[in-house]
Amino acid sequence: MAKLSDSDNLHQHISKQFDNELLDIRSRVLFLGGLVEEQIESAVKALIEGDVELANRVIKDDDKVNLMEVSIDEECTQILALRQPNARDLRLVVIVIKTIIDLERIGDEAKRIARYAIDLTNHPANYTQLIELEQLAEHVRSLLHDALNAFSRMDVDAALKVVQDDKLIDMEYESIMRKQIAHIMEDPQSTPVSLDIMWSSRSLERIGDRACNICEYVIYYAKGKIIRHISIEQVERDLQIE
Amino acid sequence: MAKLSDSDNLHQHISKQFDNELLDIRSRVLFLGGLVEEQIESAVKALIEGDVELANRVIKDDDKVNLMEVSIDEECTQILALRQPNARDLRLVVIVIKTIIDLERIGDEAKRIARYAIDLTNHPANYTQLIELEQLAEHVRSLLHDALNAFSRMDVDAALKVVQDDKLIDMEYESIMRKQIAHIMEDPQSTPVSLDIMWSSRSLERIGDRACNICEYVIYYAKGKIIRHISIEQVERDLQIE
Repeated sequence: MAKLSDSDNLHQHISKQFDNELLDIRSRVLFLGGLVEEQIESAVKALIEGDVELANRVIKDDDKVNLMEVSIDEECTQILALRQPNARDLRLVVIVIKTIIDLERIGDEAKRIARYAIDLTNHPANYTQLIELEQLAEHVRSLLHDALNAFSRMDVDAALKVVQDDKLIDMEYESIMRKQIAHIMEDPQSTPVSLDIMWSSRSLERIGDRACNICEYVIYYAKGKIIRHISIEQVERDLQIE
Repeated sequence: MAKLSDSDNLHQHISKQFDNELLDIRSRVLFLGGLVEEQIESAVKALIEGDVELANRVIKDDDKVNLMEVSIDEECTQILALRQPNARDLRLVVIVIKTIIDLERIGDEAKRIARYAIDLTNHPANYTQLIELEQLAEHVRSLLHDALNAFSRMDVDAALKVVQDDKLIDMEYESIMRKQIAHIMEDPQSTPVSLDIMWSSRSLERIGDRACNICEYVIYYAKGKIIRHISIEQVERDLQIE
């Protein structure tokens, strides 16, 4: 009897440890997400204010993002090997592996923006160009923040909202691109400036796409359904039927 | 005794089935890789020849890439849940999950190039612009092919060579970008053409990056080391020391 109780205790103990490990990777994803949000904020600030020192810090700090991604990735593989999770726990580990890849690549985009910021100090942009870019950046950061909140609560509705909101980001991005092309054609000397603005906008637009990827993983975790490549309307219909 | 033998047989049988499953996901990755290679080839052909019909086919066929990616992804999660692999087998499943994400995103880049191909029919590019892009595309396709070969044989040396060769692709890409910027500044009316060439070049350059990602997974599989974020020279030194 005592033996069984020991075994029960051991089982509970292992199960508790395992729960803690799962909680740990979730909170580390959010920490990485926070780091990446800061990188975007600093990169855009460096670009708007022509702050080379800040841009260089973003480029340097990308190493922190990379190291953290590798470390969480290794923790996930350890969990798969040692705990052999299934069902929801397995899905959690799999989506963490995918989410951190997207976060690390968002970090790469922030680094790219920091490089455009340095390049832009050679040929400053005008006020209107910067304001539009700043607005886009603000919306993209807010989208990523919402995506991370959806991840933290594994909230399907919040995740769906992010995927929908990304359409507005795409429209905003297209508008900036059109204006910059017109700008180049009117004033060819502004080409290098306009291209820096265009590349930075595209990096921001890609960050929006990656925020959506994270939300798709959240929906997969909660519903066990891969929703990539399905229209948002179809997903909402599918989820309502359940 | 008979029972033990039955159990042995059963074990061998399951183990054989499991081996087949692992072989199956590997060969499906290569099939997906082949599909994606074709998509790039067709997209670039459509762009060079101004073939809208072919471009539309690439856009439509992206669904096939997406469906296959989802299907392999589901197979991997099944294997993790039912077989609970460890060590090398686990690493294989994890790198397959990552590789197919990169292949699917390469498919997205091919779709983007097909869209630029359609746009380019409104304002045709000149011969030199197209030749340079075609050469870059040829080198990128060859790089991806080498990456898939490295994956198929899990060949670390071949994988390292791809990562090195990608530096040449980056230089070629930078050269195209510089020329297009000069072109725009000389002849602002050519802006839309030059931008299509620049966006297409960037899509190709990103495909090169993703081919490198696949090679990094191959090295991780073979050596159990994550080499992302380490310089290629460091990786070679590390691998020689072993």
